[in-house]
Amino acid sequence: MITTDLSLEQVHFRRDWHPPESVGHRCLARGLSDVAAMGARPLAAFLSLAIPAELKLSGQQRSWVVRFLEGLLALAARHKVPLAGGDTAQSPEFDCHGRKSAAMVSADIVLLGSAKRGRGLLRSDARAGDIIYVTGDLGGAAAELIALSRRPEQFTKLTTAQKNHPHLYPEPRVGVGLKLASTRMAHAAIDVSDGLSTDLLHVCEESGLAAELDAAAIPVHALATQAEQDGWVPSALGLALHGGEDYELLFTAPKRNSLPRKIAGVRIHPVGQMKPRGPRRPRIVLRERNGQTQALEPGGWEHFR
Amino acid sequence: MITTDLSLEQVHFRRDWHPPESVGHRCLARGLSDVAAMGARPLAAFLSLAIPAELKLSGQQRSWVVRFLEGLLALAARHKVPLAGGDTAQSPEFDCHGRKSAAMVSADIVLLGSAKRGRGLLRSDARAGDIIYVTGDLGGAAAELIALSRRPEQFTKLTTAQKNHPHLYPEPRVGVGLKLASTRMAHAAIDVSDGLSTDLLHVCEESGLAAELDAAAIPVHALATQAEQDGWVPSALGLALHGGEDYELLFTAPKRNSLPRKIAGVRIHPVGQMKPRGPRRPRIVLRERNGQTQALEPGGWEHFR
Repeated sequence: MITTDLSLEQVHFRRDWHPPESVGHRCLARGLSDVAAMGARPLAAFLSLAIPAELKLSGQQRSWVVRFLEGLLALAARHKVPLAGGDTAQSPEFDCHGRKSAAMVSADIVLLGSAKRGRGLLRSDARAGDIIYVTGDLGGAAAELIALSRRPEQFTKLTTAQKNHPHLYPEPRVGVGLKLASTRMAHAAIDVSDGLSTDLLHVCEESGLAAELDAAAIPVHALATQAEQDGWVPSALGLALHGGEDYELLFTAPKRNSLPRKIAGVRIHPVGQMKPRGPRRPRIVLRERNGQTQALEPGGWEHFR
Repeated sequence: MITTDLSLEQVHFRRDWHPPESVGHRCLARGLSDVAAMGARPLAAFLSLAIPAELKLSGQQRSWVVRFLEGLLALAARHKVPLAGGDTAQSPEFDCHGRKSAAMVSADIVLLGSAKRGRGLLRSDARAGDIIYVTGDLGGAAAELIALSRRPEQFTKLTTAQKNHPHLYPEPRVGVGLKLASTRMAHAAIDVSDGLSTDLLHVCEESGLAAELDAAAIPVHALATQAEQDGWVPSALGLALHGGEDYELLFTAPKRNSLPRKIAGVRIHPVGQMKPRGPRRPRIVLRERNGQTQALEPGGWEHFR
């Protein structure tokens, strides 16, 4: 299979906030996460990069592009994925009226992956009664982005991938996806790139089902809890439900399977159940801690625009 | 094999000049031409498209994006290549200082192709003594672009692919590439995307050789001749040598092979010969009609910037 993911300046990152290494890491992580969600093995990556002329030059310092590639290649090396080709071009600096216009970075990452015939994971294969699982914790990427937006200068030194920076250095769950596919543990899978509420809706729609989430079971990332405590957001659970770019996996598995607590070294959490689609019922309901249920509207991801 | 090619507004096309159908056609043609140059068969295309919000809306008229896709898909259908996936995003409308900035189209086309093991064509396999061939005529795309720049309104109605519009609707030489590879007629090949002088230099460099071109043998496109007659350019031959984006194939073949006049229905023209690399000799010399030779510097392609 082949996946392609566009990363655009001002949409997916800000050049004045994100260290270039993080932009490169996240660019590849998006592609690897797509491959992981299909239960496939990444074979090779291809990068098409449009860059403003000024980013190629840089007196004493390593250029933006070199640092971008270092971040991308460090993650590629960890997953043993060669950067096998691509294309580069210089971003336009003038608009169609000849007016000076901000030249921007755009990076398209293409991942080539392989899955055994009939073993790949699809969004459309969930069945009613399946338990819904997520890997890791949710809401951390959105919480870190909020922190980044408040004090960008704090992040300039984060130039190498490190744990607990789910926005700057998300960890695509390639090993989990491979394990789910090879053991046939899971029915359906997707990566949580747009937010749990939105990505679960994709699974519901493509499988022709509904879903119920259990609020108390959703693994809220510590950074999201911190953001609530600090008064930056009204609810950590909201970040976990609607914040995007965590790049965790969401998958469904039959109730009879007893799954391990960890898969490929990553904690998994049951968070709800797939349901048959009924008339006049919302696609996704959230069962709150007090037992009441409410319709969960997809919140999705707020970009920088 | 996989190829990726970026098409950027203001670099590869102008939204106020090019019909959207032409932009879509040329986007895919670039990828197909890369596949052709490798002697491979195109299997599937993947498109990553960043578009300004305003191009998705359009009262009575079909939107820019729909027309772009029509152009792309018409060419895809002719080559029986499915558009098998991709990604879309909305181009940013503000720069990093929050200033309004022109949102631009960028399109990255990925082509997946297959070549029999050991049968693909490379730039690096030319040998000294090989005859250099090109398909079709050269300089037509550059000549048509000059005409377009002078009277853009003439081109707005050219919304479907047609012959003799080598800039708006270039014809990638997929059939020629496949034939060259399957018959083992050619040693090395490249597509003429940056201009004959630049692309031949790539073959020379990657094969460790030099080359001699015969000015009288170069097939100059009728539109280039017209541009010279109309006084728009000093020399039609200059357009044929340095104008880019013709998407013809340049290939080398052993002198002993007698090649047909046409391959896969396309005229081929011997234009020179590969030579051993010598000290203090230019990489490429041009033998002029009067028998004198001069060094040929790569001219390459002038983009819109």
